[in-house]
Amino acid sequence: MAVTTAAYSGDNRSAQRGRPRDASRDDALRQAALEVMAEVGYRALTMDAVAARARAGKATIYRRWESKLDLVIDTCTQLASQNLATPDTGTLDGDLREFLSSFAAFLSGPIGKAAQALVGELPHEPELAAAFRETFLISQRNVLRGIIDRAGDRGELRPDAPRGMAVELAGAALTYRLMLTGDPLDETFVNKIVDQVLVPLIKS
Amino acid sequence: MAVTTAAYSGDNRSAQRGRPRDASRDDALRQAALEVMAEVGYRALTMDAVAARARAGKATIYRRWESKLDLVIDTCTQLASQNLATPDTGTLDGDLREFLSSFAAFLSGPIGKAAQALVGELPHEPELAAAFRETFLISQRNVLRGIIDRAGDRGELRPDAPRGMAVELAGAALTYRLMLTGDPLDETFVNKIVDQVLVPLIKS
Repeated sequence: MAVTTAAYSGDNRSAQRGRPRDASRDDALRQAALEVMAEVGYRALTMDAVAARARAGKATIYRRWESKLDLVIDTCTQLASQNLATPDTGTLDGDLREFLSSFAAFLSGPIGKAAQALVGELPHEPELAAAFRETFLISQRNVLRGIIDRAGDRGELRPDAPRGMAVELAGAALTYRLMLTGDPLDETFVNKIVDQVLVPLIKS
Repeated sequence: MAVTTAAYSGDNRSAQRGRPRDASRDDALRQAALEVMAEVGYRALTMDAVAARARAGKATIYRRWESKLDLVIDTCTQLASQNLATPDTGTLDGDLREFLSSFAAFLSGPIGKAAQALVGELPHEPELAAAFRETFLISQRNVLRGIIDRAGDRGELRPDAPRGMAVELAGAALTYRLMLTGDPLDETFVNKIVDQVLVPLIKS
């Protein structure tokens, strides 16, 4: 009798009252959502497909997120907060090169594919668009802005340097290759953007 | 009796044997495809929806295009060839300003929305990706390259001007606002791109 109870409680762990939600399980579900979205896009994504990918029940997913919009927004938010480190090499060139290399690598993985899948939906889904911009766009924009402002504090920039334009161009250049042209997002390209465009644009 | 026949033949014009295909009818069907794509995206577009929008029969569409992929590729191809004029003001600044203003207006209309709807599908549809790049991307790239090369012929550019990079940045800056940030694609932005970025990057 005791053994049977233990076996049942093992099968129903997440349903036990008062037990904290398993954060690593949430991450696995978000990872599954990301992979499905990268493969089929937002519109064709279903909770069933995410559940199947994560080897979870559909109820497990609905216990955590009310709708696929909730799930996708939460997935974007969590991922954006985890993946962008701020470099501090002591020079504008060094910081830009290090950050844009890591951002290019980040975009080349499943997150970039999922972001691409979302782009076509932004005009039709205002809540998704707001979340996408707050997470995916603003997080990288803030890191770039910090890099540039610190270079300004060190006296590396021209007084009239168009800082906002430099931030916008860096994001534009990388996402254009990722999503539209398909040309490589490699070290050579990052070096060209830094040396030919960003540094001449703002450095004194 | 004669009146009745005339009325019927009016209803069935496109079905008459030996009559050449009506080019303006093709354009109306392409316009309908573009509008449906801008609204629902490529994946959710159906031949039925395009037929309904154009007030045509589904057979009318299938007589012209084998599949929705055919229809969408042909629509992109036709539109790209019609809409981009090459300015020739005699200066680099003038040509860039005129072309980028008209390209910004072009992107802000239904073609920009349709292009945005296609972006998420490019990784999954290699034929569509090839057509999209050959039409939407390469046609604007060729106009920009022509503008820059003519400025070079007039001696307006630095010998080491990164011409390809200028072309890429112009396309990237406009499509980033259109598809990702949603910030305005207006005259102010075009002037900033020309004056702060493109002209300093390549002009001697």
